[in-house]
Amino acid sequence: HVDTKHRVYMDYNATTPLEPDVIQAINEALQEAWGNPSSNYIAGAKAKKIIHQSRENVARMVGGKEEDLIFTSGGTEANNLVLHSAVEYFRRSCSAAEQGEGHHNGCTGHPHIITTNVEHDSVKLVAEHLQREGKADVTFVPVSKLTAHVEVEDIIAAVRPNTCLISVMLANNETGVIMVGRNIFCCCSLTDSFLILVHTDAAQALGKIPVDVCGLGVDYLTIVGHKFYGPRIGALYVNGLQTTTPLYPMLFGGGQERNFRPGTENTAMIAGLGKAAELVTSNLSDYESHMKSITLYLEEKLQAAFKDRIHFNSHYPGSDILPNTCNVSILGPTLQGWRVLSNCRKLLASVGAACHSGNRPSHILLSCGISSEVAANALRLSVGRGTTKEDVDAVVEDLKETVLLLEKMN
Amino acid sequence: HVDTKHRVYMDYNATTPLEPDVIQAINEALQEAWGNPSSNYIAGAKAKKIIHQSRENVARMVGGKEEDLIFTSGGTEANNLVLHSAVEYFRRSCSAAEQGEGHHNGCTGHPHIITTNVEHDSVKLVAEHLQREGKADVTFVPVSKLTAHVEVEDIIAAVRPNTCLISVMLANNETGVIMVGRNIFCCCSLTDSFLILVHTDAAQALGKIPVDVCGLGVDYLTIVGHKFYGPRIGALYVNGLQTTTPLYPMLFGGGQERNFRPGTENTAMIAGLGKAAELVTSNLSDYESHMKSITLYLEEKLQAAFKDRIHFNSHYPGSDILPNTCNVSILGPTLQGWRVLSNCRKLLASVGAACHSGNRPSHILLSCGISSEVAANALRLSVGRGTTKEDVDAVVEDLKETVLLLEKMN
Repeated sequence: HVDTKHRVYMDYNATTPLEPDVIQAINEALQEAWGNPSSNYIAGAKAKKIIHQSRENVARMVGGKEEDLIFTSGGTEANNLVLHSAVEYFRRSCSAAEQGEGHHNGCTGHPHIITTNVEHDSVKLVAEHLQREGKADVTFVPVSKLTAHVEVEDIIAAVRPNTCLISVMLANNETGVIMVGRNIFCCCSLTDSFLILVHTDAAQALGKIPVDVCGLGVDYLTIVGHKFYGPRIGALYVNGLQTTTPLYPMLFGGGQERNFRPGTENTAMIAGLGKAAELVTSNLSDYESHMKSITLYLEEKLQAAFKDRIHFNSHYPGSDILPNTCNVSILGPTLQGWRVLSNCRKLLASVGAACHSGNRPSHILLSCGISSEVAANALRLSVGRGTTKEDVDAVVEDLKETVLLLEKMN
Repeated sequence: HVDTKHRVYMDYNATTPLEPDVIQAINEALQEAWGNPSSNYIAGAKAKKIIHQSRENVARMVGGKEEDLIFTSGGTEANNLVLHSAVEYFRRSCSAAEQGEGHHNGCTGHPHIITTNVEHDSVKLVAEHLQREGKADVTFVPVSKLTAHVEVEDIIAAVRPNTCLISVMLANNETGVIMVGRNIFCCCSLTDSFLILVHTDAAQALGKIPVDVCGLGVDYLTIVGHKFYGPRIGALYVNGLQTTTPLYPMLFGGGQERNFRPGTENTAMIAGLGKAAELVTSNLSDYESHMKSITLYLEEKLQAAFKDRIHFNSHYPGSDILPNTCNVSILGPTLQGWRVLSNCRKLLASVGAACHSGNRPSHILLSCGISSEVAANALRLSVGRGTTKEDVDAVVEDLKETVLLLEKMN
């Protein structure tokens, strides 16, 4: 049995605890707003009102309008829905074009999707599935090994007449490198004979850096509650839903979420998501500056402790990083990430995405140009709103002892 | 502002409140098991353990094994997943047959789905969508107007060489009539040259009558938490998942739920679902007999109050009804269901499925042979675990006053 009390959690990119206000909002809804939001009477009206309020709060967090937000069961569903919609949109546009109703790029062959080689599996595996099934062609644009993000010109170079979607994550979950600036998505308007839909998975960015859907110029933006101290549901923001941007449901049923995502609404979790979003809107700059200073302190302490044996896997000239992410390798033949973590007595962290906590070097880091020896030793340390300098001191001490132990054992 | 305290809720088929034990389980998980279940360390292990325990409890409620249960965001997703899987299975079987790898019924034309004309929209609209898209042929077998359920011979008569799925709800949400007995699904094994998958949506039956997946002889069974005092998620039971029964995911992502339903697990809601299932397993006979006696009392009181002006829309010779459902019409030209309900001062109920609370007579009731005049006046009264005889007295009094008022107004 491990005592969690004396542990220091530095895996906030995997998931976050819920803010007490969020738990309270969930509880109030569980107790008092359990009515079916579709019911005509008072119990339903209460639930409906909570959902409306949450929709406003979540939309406001990304600088959007409430009518453009669809609640989903999570980020995985939101990402799947985007790729599904883009392919479906291409299919319908082509069939309309054949009937002389409109114009479309190049309705020969499959729809073409552009994404990167460092996306989360809920984009990557959907794209691969569509490719395998012969439903879409996909280009996985590699990130630059100099900057760890995709370059605009590489995206532009990948565009084909039948490109229907560009999907690039806002910030990478392992390196913390910010992938998307306004410049990435401007490329689409450069060639305005195309109607190419643009998506960013903002799972890792929300609650850490300012995210503005208009500033980014995206059509779709994925929101994931449990990465910003909210519950395990999500939302898809669709800029100009139904007016300028198409969305085609994957599920059919009772008409909820204007038929875009049917199923009796998970009122309590939606209430929690709204509260978590409200907290981000109000406090983002505090959260950001706190995490930034703690991460900086962590890096200084690590540098001081391990000198030239430390390698920061997220430091690329000219690239911005999330304020909370420190992907770091301590060099040495016996210091593989999984080995270090399983011997640490205080630190709770991971070697990469939670869904893939394995023993092989992260393909994300290899894609960013990190050598496999260094990548094998990677620790993804990610701090949170409540991480203190004392926590950092304890973790660095723990790492020092663990490294000593592992090198002695050898 | 309406005072909910003095209201009597009789719409338990739309949704139920959460049991206090369920809220507590959700809360404990929100507070203490917020770790990512995929994480290797202690915080993840705790969440993983809760999910495992819940899976056992939910499987036990339907007489099944934990390895055959997949958590979903709700019943809508579970139902969609079944129809998707059946069509996908047909497609793959046909393409395997073409390559000489196996036998299949009749791989000419589309897969064929058999369902009924009184299903929930999360089956009905999926089937219609598949039909419209040219992806499946669908037969909507009408229920008998004498029994309000589908007859075995009508199902058998609908079977074609390319039938891949029969989907029949276990109990109807509006009439409460139990649609499925062992005999319905026996028809499939009668013709054992076919491999026809069999599904029942048990949303309305669970927590009200015993449900045993083996006794029913189904391949798929849909479970919906918020109909049995649990949270707004669901599950799909797949009898012999991967061994005898195929399942093809609709979503792709981080590998959770053995890749059948990826997305970081909603641990807290899953904890609540497990607790709600545990309560059903322990207390079902008490719940059932209480609801039965209250419903009987309600029917007696309504009969006494309205004499021959009352029509019970769920009473069919030889058909069983859920113990909690009383679909009733008070006859009279001004006593349409919506009008009665909007004038009641205490009763909270609906005229049919919550997703469709409208002013037109229910197509479900019309399908069961109820005339449109009678159907227009229908009230779906559904009682719960805590409904008392005093509640019934208050509701009947309320209805008497409302009827008097509406007839005076005329």
